Amino acid sequence: MATSSSHSAHRELLTERSARIVAARKLTRRSGRDAAGLFLAEGRQAVVEALVEPDGVREVLATEPAAAAHRDLLSATRVPVRLITEKAAAGLSETVTPQGLLAVCELRDVDPETLVARPPQLSVALAELADPGNAGTVLRTADACGAGAVVFGAGSADPYGGKAVRASAGSLFHVDVVRGAPLEELLPAVRRAGVAVLAADGGGEASLDELAERLAGPVLWLFGNEARGVPADLVALADARVRIPMRGRAESLNLAAAAAICLYATQLAQG
Amino acid sequence: MATSSSHSAHRELLTERSARIVAARKLTRRSGRDAAGLFLAEGRQAVVEALVEPDGVREVLATEPAAAAHRDLLSATRVPVRLITEKAAAGLSETVTPQGLLAVCELRDVDPETLVARPPQLSVALAELADPGNAGTVLRTADACGAGAVVFGAGSADPYGGKAVRASAGSLFHVDVVRGAPLEELLPAVRRAGVAVLAADGGGEASLDELAERLAGPVLWLFGNEARGVPADLVALADARVRIPMRGRAESLNLAAAAAICLYATQLAQG
Repeated sequence: MATSSSHSAHRELLTERSARIVAARKLTRRSGRDAAGLFLAEGRQAVVEALVEPDGVREVLATEPAAAAHRDLLSATRVPVRLITEKAAAGLSETVTPQGLLAVCELRDVDPETLVARPPQLSVALAELADPGNAGTVLRTADACGAGAVVFGAGSADPYGGKAVRASAGSLFHVDVVRGAPLEELLPAVRRAGVAVLAADGGGEASLDELAERLAGPVLWLFGNEARGVPADLVALADARVRIPMRGRAESLNLAAAAAICLYATQLAQG
Repeated sequence: MATSSSHSAHRELLTERSARIVAARKLTRRSGRDAAGLFLAEGRQAVVEALVEPDGVREVLATEPAAAAHRDLLSATRVPVRLITEKAAAGLSETVTPQGLLAVCELRDVDPETLVARPPQLSVALAELADPGNAGTVLRTADACGAGAVVFGAGSADPYGGKAVRASAGSLFHVDVVRGAPLEELLPAVRRAGVAVLAADGGGEASLDELAERLAGPVLWLFGNEARGVPADLVALADARVRIPMRGRAESLNLAAAAAICLYATQLAQG
């Protein structure tokens, strides 16, 4: 099958047994990502966002149909584009319908110290958040509401996993990502830097709709596990435990929904 | 293995081949639910909510460990409780870790005419919403924010499917559910009844933060497909297309996050 690629060196298809694909496949596991310092960004939207900073992209992998469909994008970058088989693409994908287009990107972690040295007006910390889809969704919402950084504490889902990258819809490339920081040390340091640390907690003593003044200054929102909430030892380090007032009968909100409400309220208060 | 059930008639375990379990298994598909007029609610939270109105519950199915763990709940109801094998429970579950406790419940659909005859202050209509988890999450958020009804238009995920029921976290039993109503007829009728129909649309001409006055009256929010948004022919029937202002770089929000922000803003405006 002929391809319309202009560069003949790219026409040799990498299979699932090629060394590059074997190496890339290791990036579907967290241990492999951390060992290599790389992750996979799948799909056009993620690849577009990745290529905005091409220095952070090692290569783009594309099936022949994907290379043809996204020729505009791939012909405009100086990042190497390598053609791969459908089977190779399937082995790198965490979706049921692989898109055949992936960027191999460098991890984008920033030093937690930046949160203390130059605190953003809005940032987020996640404690023991379990679901990768929620990790990506909260990242996307934080980005939309203007957050400068999202901290994934120990025990949280990895924002560089395939499902999280997909759910973030490109926002992984917009917001500073901090991983592995011990929140029990970071939260007090951030507070000393003048940031209000607010723990989202269904039983909180402060109501979100009465917090406009506090939300107008620098804020770090702390969200917890989907079932158990924020661990008690971390709640104790917050300036306030904040509940979302609910007039209906639901006992609680889904974590991503609660985060959206808190972050949007903060965006509004910060004008 | 002895059980501590007091009623010997219940001690015979139903297997996956028992007629009741074969019938219940059909409820894991939409066609089976619609044919029987029944659905399955799995897990303690859902069963507790279902049993608040026992007339709507045909039977409770429980494995022996689940019956023991939830003896308080099961001994307090007059609904028949039947013991089932682990394998039977697994066949009825849509989760990877079946909880061994299910209620067989009657569908709770209400007539769409109720939205016109007695419009709630807040209601929601979903057009072509694809993901069952989102269907349940929006139901839960709508409940939390005091909505009276959620309409699942043609082509939307079924709120009675296992994943949707689980994501709704009991809210399916709190809010009026309307299915199969032709939205192109219902929306104009609702507007004539004095309700403002607002279509959530990233490119909308109205900004959510400038709508407080409109949100204070009766409102129906219209949300669409996760990828394609609200179908154009339905957008045309709305009073306004509403965007959520975003100061960050994300192009859009996850559907459940956007719905949470819109519904919470409405709750606040309605005081």
